[in-house]
Amino acid sequence: MSRHSLFHLDPKAKGSLQSQIRELLVQAILDGHLPGDSALPSCRTLAKQLGVGRNTVVIAYQTLVDEGFLLSKERSGHYVNTEISNTSLAKRKQTTSSEEVQWLDNIKITASELPHIYKPKNWRESPYPFIYGQFDPSLFPIADWRECVRESVAISAIHEWAGDRFDRDDQQLTHQIRTRLLPRRGIWANDGEILITSGTQQALYIISQLLIDQTTVVGMEEPGYYDARNVLGLAKPQFEPLAVNKGGIKITPKLCQCDLIYSTPSHHFPTTATMPLSRRRQLLKYANEYGFTIIEDDYETENNFFSAKPLPTLKSLDKYNRVLYMGSLSKTLAPGLRLGYLVGPSEFIQEARALRRLMMRHMPANNQQIIALFIKLGHYDSLIHRMHNEFKTRWEIMNTALANHLGKCADYYSSGGTSFWVKGPSWLDTEKLQRKAAQHGILIESGSVFFMQKPKICNYFRLGFSSIAQSKIEPGIKQLAEIIKDIH
Amino acid sequence: MSRHSLFHLDPKAKGSLQSQIRELLVQAILDGHLPGDSALPSCRTLAKQLGVGRNTVVIAYQTLVDEGFLLSKERSGHYVNTEISNTSLAKRKQTTSSEEVQWLDNIKITASELPHIYKPKNWRESPYPFIYGQFDPSLFPIADWRECVRESVAISAIHEWAGDRFDRDDQQLTHQIRTRLLPRRGIWANDGEILITSGTQQALYIISQLLIDQTTVVGMEEPGYYDARNVLGLAKPQFEPLAVNKGGIKITPKLCQCDLIYSTPSHHFPTTATMPLSRRRQLLKYANEYGFTIIEDDYETENNFFSAKPLPTLKSLDKYNRVLYMGSLSKTLAPGLRLGYLVGPSEFIQEARALRRLMMRHMPANNQQIIALFIKLGHYDSLIHRMHNEFKTRWEIMNTALANHLGKCADYYSSGGTSFWVKGPSWLDTEKLQRKAAQHGILIESGSVFFMQKPKICNYFRLGFSSIAQSKIEPGIKQLAEIIKDIH
Repeated sequence: MSRHSLFHLDPKAKGSLQSQIRELLVQAILDGHLPGDSALPSCRTLAKQLGVGRNTVVIAYQTLVDEGFLLSKERSGHYVNTEISNTSLAKRKQTTSSEEVQWLDNIKITASELPHIYKPKNWRESPYPFIYGQFDPSLFPIADWRECVRESVAISAIHEWAGDRFDRDDQQLTHQIRTRLLPRRGIWANDGEILITSGTQQALYIISQLLIDQTTVVGMEEPGYYDARNVLGLAKPQFEPLAVNKGGIKITPKLCQCDLIYSTPSHHFPTTATMPLSRRRQLLKYANEYGFTIIEDDYETENNFFSAKPLPTLKSLDKYNRVLYMGSLSKTLAPGLRLGYLVGPSEFIQEARALRRLMMRHMPANNQQIIALFIKLGHYDSLIHRMHNEFKTRWEIMNTALANHLGKCADYYSSGGTSFWVKGPSWLDTEKLQRKAAQHGILIESGSVFFMQKPKICNYFRLGFSSIAQSKIEPGIKQLAEIIKDIH
Repeated sequence: MSRHSLFHLDPKAKGSLQSQIRELLVQAILDGHLPGDSALPSCRTLAKQLGVGRNTVVIAYQTLVDEGFLLSKERSGHYVNTEISNTSLAKRKQTTSSEEVQWLDNIKITASELPHIYKPKNWRESPYPFIYGQFDPSLFPIADWRECVRESVAISAIHEWAGDRFDRDDQQLTHQIRTRLLPRRGIWANDGEILITSGTQQALYIISQLLIDQTTVVGMEEPGYYDARNVLGLAKPQFEPLAVNKGGIKITPKLCQCDLIYSTPSHHFPTTATMPLSRRRQLLKYANEYGFTIIEDDYETENNFFSAKPLPTLKSLDKYNRVLYMGSLSKTLAPGLRLGYLVGPSEFIQEARALRRLMMRHMPANNQQIIALFIKLGHYDSLIHRMHNEFKTRWEIMNTALANHLGKCADYYSSGGTSFWVKGPSWLDTEKLQRKAAQHGILIESGSVFFMQKPKICNYFRLGFSSIAQSKIEPGIKQLAEIIKDIH
């Protein structure tokens, strides 16, 4: 990069000219394009070159001197502070000196090594993203969201959310969840039984810290949600894999050995299987008789396409106070907002709140306020309604496409939600298929990551439809079928 | 409450008439004002009473039937579902049945029992809130904030923040912290050395989980920040109290026994003492020689009123890679936003990021984007500048008021920040003083909560000035002095 090209202002950039100039120079220094002790152009020269007033450059330089990026030498102009570019940055690139700490030697938890699905950052550029659980911008209620955001910057609103709340959640949001979201799931809770969380992850994390130690036996659906295993696994329990069929977790004597069971009765993750009412009752009866706690992860409950109403939640059927219920707005509104809720007995929620206070206090209060209003104004209801219709159509298109193109070689299944679970022929290595398909712009997810006891060759895979346009579904499935044929 | 008064619409309320009616009814049912099986007014009657169209009520009733709040009986109208008001809510009020779980018996962490300062929720209504670290609405940059929020609802911006980021922070925010906030503190980091946190709490929590177990010796400033003790204490270390004087942590042989030290060199919490440069160097030398890690909580660094530039941070002086640095926007922008950052060696930050992913993924991405822009446009700089001037004035007013009214009976001290640390006469029980003063609308904080080894009678207290108007300082101190006299 030539020295000259460093000094060029982007006409579309935001911010004052002065701050743009500072950013430009800081970037060049930190990136090493302006090494230590380089002389900068004089204020007059740079001002001319950028087409700005001389004073603008003078102020920018002076601020950078104050911040330590530049040194000002009398009568000879401005220079890059050697301390920054040589000492600090260059040093870091050298190999670790013997005096430096080996940080990894002391780390008690190495969560970076846990398995998880790698979702390519630029998945949106793929023509056929059968990726799961990602945000579809075409469904986001832009105008409704703007309306609520506008309210959050009124002076009175700012005064409400800006202060320190210690461990308190936004009252309005708790109220909306209690009176609008939970009753739809048959759950009648009071404020003290609801904790606002940063999504399902945080609810699981708090549960793991409060209820699990090395003596705890935790039953996990097999296959199941790998991240639930990762999070609950931090407390080092003994995991017990629980077999699943088209009715969800099977009722077997294994259940009696468990202290805690993680379950997704609404749509089993990843197969989408819905647990029938009779089995829900049986599971609860067991929970009471054998004294285990059930975590009910009630995700994608809205996307039920075969009956007017979804089945009642375990929580709504629970007479014994055995269920901890988790809901999330990630799959409906936007995952980037990180908002969910945990519902449980008030004694438990009180401890969960105290732990959350130490972990991070509370979710940002401006977002809580915006989302409360979003539900209150009925925007959430309409969003759910719109998504339901859209996903139902996509589900039908995919169902037909699978019948036409994969029906002969594969079993496929979906009881709703936003995905199909496909069992390919026994010889099909879906990890290989996933890589091959990706080369053709088709993103699918091999089933292997969902199994605690990994099969040697995994012939299951998942096809999501929450982030793919209707028109792309059929051609994508068709091409995928051809790739499978080619592999054989 | 009469039955009639339940059915009254607030003309200022938000949302459609239909959703207002639903909210009204749901509230009445959940609060028990409409017991199970009560008959509701006919659609026609209620419509007339509320002055709305009949269809609006019909739709509201129908939705409530769908949600299970109401039952519709043919030809006789709508009734409150007994299941809700009798079974679910009433049951909860009964004493726990023998079959119900004793949740607290199984809880591994009872964080609710830890000591913390009780800050009255309605402190703003007190005439003299010498409370610490609370939000002062008069300083919040409303117009600047609105500008940045507006940008965050542009379509392209929504597409950027709404999606799932797994463990990734907002690149722009990391960039702004790296190039604008950290250099001011002499710290030159790369992106991989910065983690965005939900404030200091979360940074400390992550550190506690990664670096502490029961064999770890953690040195804590005495007196010190009780919440740091609470958070680091979750991992059950052995705490070592470290004596503090007007230069911060004293350099004593005790340091050598520590594995980890929590420190607030910029302004010691709660005394505001600033650690001089020579002691900073000595502490780092010890850290290297005896192999301990230093947590540097660099809060309120901006509020330095006695020199043009604050002293260099430990992190900036650290040649041995021994310092984990924490910054926060809570004390400057707004505590309700929950935003801070942790800076450390990239190996450490990588593990911290992996753990944060399991704990809660990341901070809400819309806020990250708004705050990045806020810094980029220079609004954060101006805010700091404005706060600095305002707090300097308050500091001076308070310094004079203390000299005039408490100079004879108490020692007072402040090296900046947003508070004074006051040592009353030895007979002064400041817990009693705190209660007495509160009765006169004067909120102060007894020093006892800051001590790990609690004195029998604590004659120290803290007077904050971050949330009190200039005009209130002198009269508040004057009255406080009279209360102290009365106690004697």
